[in-house]
Amino acid sequence: MSETPYQALTVESLPRRLGEIAALRERIGGPPEGWRVREVGDGNLNLVFIVEGAAGGAVAKQALPYVRLVGESWPLPLKRSYFEYHALTRQGARDPGRVPAIYHFDEGQALIAMEYLHPHKILRRDLEAGVKHKGLAEQLGEFCARTLFRGSDLSMKTSERKADLALFADNVALCDITEQLVFTDPYYAAPMNRHTPELDGLVAELRADVELKVAAQQLKLKFCNHAETLLHGDLHTGSIMAHVGEARVIDPEFACYGPFGFDVGMLIANFLMAYFAQAGYEAREGEREDFRGWTLDVAEGVWTRFRTEFARLWRTERTGILFPKALYEDQGHMLAAEQALSALLQDIWIDALGFAGVEMHRRILGLAHIAEFEHIEDTGRRAACEAKALRLGRHLAVNRARLLGFADIRAAAVRLERQG
Amino acid sequence: MSETPYQALTVESLPRRLGEIAALRERIGGPPEGWRVREVGDGNLNLVFIVEGAAGGAVAKQALPYVRLVGESWPLPLKRSYFEYHALTRQGARDPGRVPAIYHFDEGQALIAMEYLHPHKILRRDLEAGVKHKGLAEQLGEFCARTLFRGSDLSMKTSERKADLALFADNVALCDITEQLVFTDPYYAAPMNRHTPELDGLVAELRADVELKVAAQQLKLKFCNHAETLLHGDLHTGSIMAHVGEARVIDPEFACYGPFGFDVGMLIANFLMAYFAQAGYEAREGEREDFRGWTLDVAEGVWTRFRTEFARLWRTERTGILFPKALYEDQGHMLAAEQALSALLQDIWIDALGFAGVEMHRRILGLAHIAEFEHIEDTGRRAACEAKALRLGRHLAVNRARLLGFADIRAAAVRLERQG
Repeated sequence: MSETPYQALTVESLPRRLGEIAALRERIGGPPEGWRVREVGDGNLNLVFIVEGAAGGAVAKQALPYVRLVGESWPLPLKRSYFEYHALTRQGARDPGRVPAIYHFDEGQALIAMEYLHPHKILRRDLEAGVKHKGLAEQLGEFCARTLFRGSDLSMKTSERKADLALFADNVALCDITEQLVFTDPYYAAPMNRHTPELDGLVAELRADVELKVAAQQLKLKFCNHAETLLHGDLHTGSIMAHVGEARVIDPEFACYGPFGFDVGMLIANFLMAYFAQAGYEAREGEREDFRGWTLDVAEGVWTRFRTEFARLWRTERTGILFPKALYEDQGHMLAAEQALSALLQDIWIDALGFAGVEMHRRILGLAHIAEFEHIEDTGRRAACEAKALRLGRHLAVNRARLLGFADIRAAAVRLERQG
Repeated sequence: MSETPYQALTVESLPRRLGEIAALRERIGGPPEGWRVREVGDGNLNLVFIVEGAAGGAVAKQALPYVRLVGESWPLPLKRSYFEYHALTRQGARDPGRVPAIYHFDEGQALIAMEYLHPHKILRRDLEAGVKHKGLAEQLGEFCARTLFRGSDLSMKTSERKADLALFADNVALCDITEQLVFTDPYYAAPMNRHTPELDGLVAELRADVELKVAAQQLKLKFCNHAETLLHGDLHTGSIMAHVGEARVIDPEFACYGPFGFDVGMLIANFLMAYFAQAGYEAREGEREDFRGWTLDVAEGVWTRFRTEFARLWRTERTGILFPKALYEDQGHMLAAEQALSALLQDIWIDALGFAGVEMHRRILGLAHIAEFEHIEDTGRRAACEAKALRLGRHLAVNRARLLGFADIRAAAVRLERQG
């Protein structure tokens, strides 16, 4: 299939085309003509098929040469599939079992055949429905710590890190989406923006907020230029699938080298938004209070576990060129290593809060919104939830260096939720 | 010549081999067999020939597959010539006239034929001899501002910047030298280190200094990961040639993407070291006082002109994806752009001081020393000069975020010089 020119798969053509691949025939089982195929892509960009047969199933994800959500008027390179494949293989090695296993990759067809996660559901849907998941914060915090630590000069051979830096530097089109839609568009009346009409007043206030607009671009400089580690690049709760006690991370096609704090911050932001969305689903006030509290616990737990695991790897796996043991522990200066770790974690914390702030803004003011807010039908009620998230986002982005720990975030979120 | 396998040039073979190139035949003039050829490479790495003929001259710089200073036991990729060529073309476009014009590049032979700068001398020699140069600070400050601003996401199309990032990310071997020899080796007893014996006590003190060793690695993280702009990468006073009122910048084979503050900091450090070296050349105390003061003036002037020119480019040429005018000036928020500029210049200043500090350390404690100190024959006298530079370097690296402007540096340097 790799010799043929690119052709988008259909439910009808898939069995014949993927049936030629031995690894998939074996994995799915039975004659390809008997396979059950569904197209389930509900994201904004790609085709996603679930294929099931006698022995099991697989997911076939294929890039389209344009943005699915918008159409052919917004072309997007097929090569994003290549970056997703390379990110998945690295994440799979750095935190085994947390991303889908890959069965087959065809660069020319921009196609990845991978593990069918079943009966896992997109986490964002459960955050809307009010369904908790045990161990979520721990698994996500560890995923961030392991992939971010092990993709950096703290761990890798630097020639390999530089080669990966160069490889992912070519993911220009998807980086461009983040650069533009996350850090710039929300802060002025860019053409693709939209927001709930009742927010007009607050939106004008934010777009006139010099501190915020400076902070957003300072964070953009970090995202664009500070190539500290390989990021997932789009680690929101729609990129996580969960089922009783197990979270899996998918869709790293936005992968690029960037700052340690980016993935963690985006993740925390999405739990904070889920916190503020709960009020939109309460038939009587307070009925989601327990679940609402849980979303904050998860946000805090992601950071706590990230810190703990990152520190463990720092102490046990610091084999890269940065902060070498030869200079610290081997000279009897163990506490120099601890001091440097504390300072680095403090920097990551500050960055993460900043990225969390702009993520909350772009999900309410920009092009790509989140289901938890969008599905609140009453726009007045939705705007009330969104306004709290916007205000907290501003607080995080502007005051990121002044917030000492998660207790400060929790207090601010709870005050906003209670007092509007 | 490009089809033939790599072969190091000699004084004898050069006319025949370079005589085949029309551009050089024309530039040098007369029959190649009549050319006068001298090998003048006094650096650590390469062959450098000066070729003169009836019409003029040229410099032919050829990489060797090993470090010239050490020999074949330390191999070094020929490809550094490729990075030097690409850096020279970019610097030439970004600050026209400040780097040598290129006449010919042969990647296979790792050879660049370029402008013969005549009668310019390596600036470091004049800093030792006590010879001033008019306009030096201004020309070097402008060179830094223009090359650093115009090689960044403040100015470039980001797809082009990312392509350049990938291109220079392959300059692994030379980055490795900087990473190892500047940021790590000086701070422990690494095999290639050497220092003036009378410094033993101070060296032990510095290598036990936890604040310093943490700062050095924090700066290393910035150098390795913060890919803000294309650096010269080795901008010391041995990479500058000067003659009455004209400074030219050479030898960018260490070019890579890195933080804005690196080149500026290294440059400032080399003038500060020249300041402390003067005492080693005084037959009677104070006879170099005027020249000594001038080296501090140049250090300050480099920073002042850098700031001024960077600010001018920020206001007039800010066409990249960072801090876009669409978000600031176009919204009537001119002062948001000014606030962001001040904050960025403050960050660059802090980084530059840190890089200046480690540069001063590695030139006294590491492998590559500077002539101004090395040529002070009395080791006690030399150590007295070097100790002041080591102490100021520590002050800069550790306190970089607390030093408000050049007046603070000047005061510290003068106190050290007077009181030891």
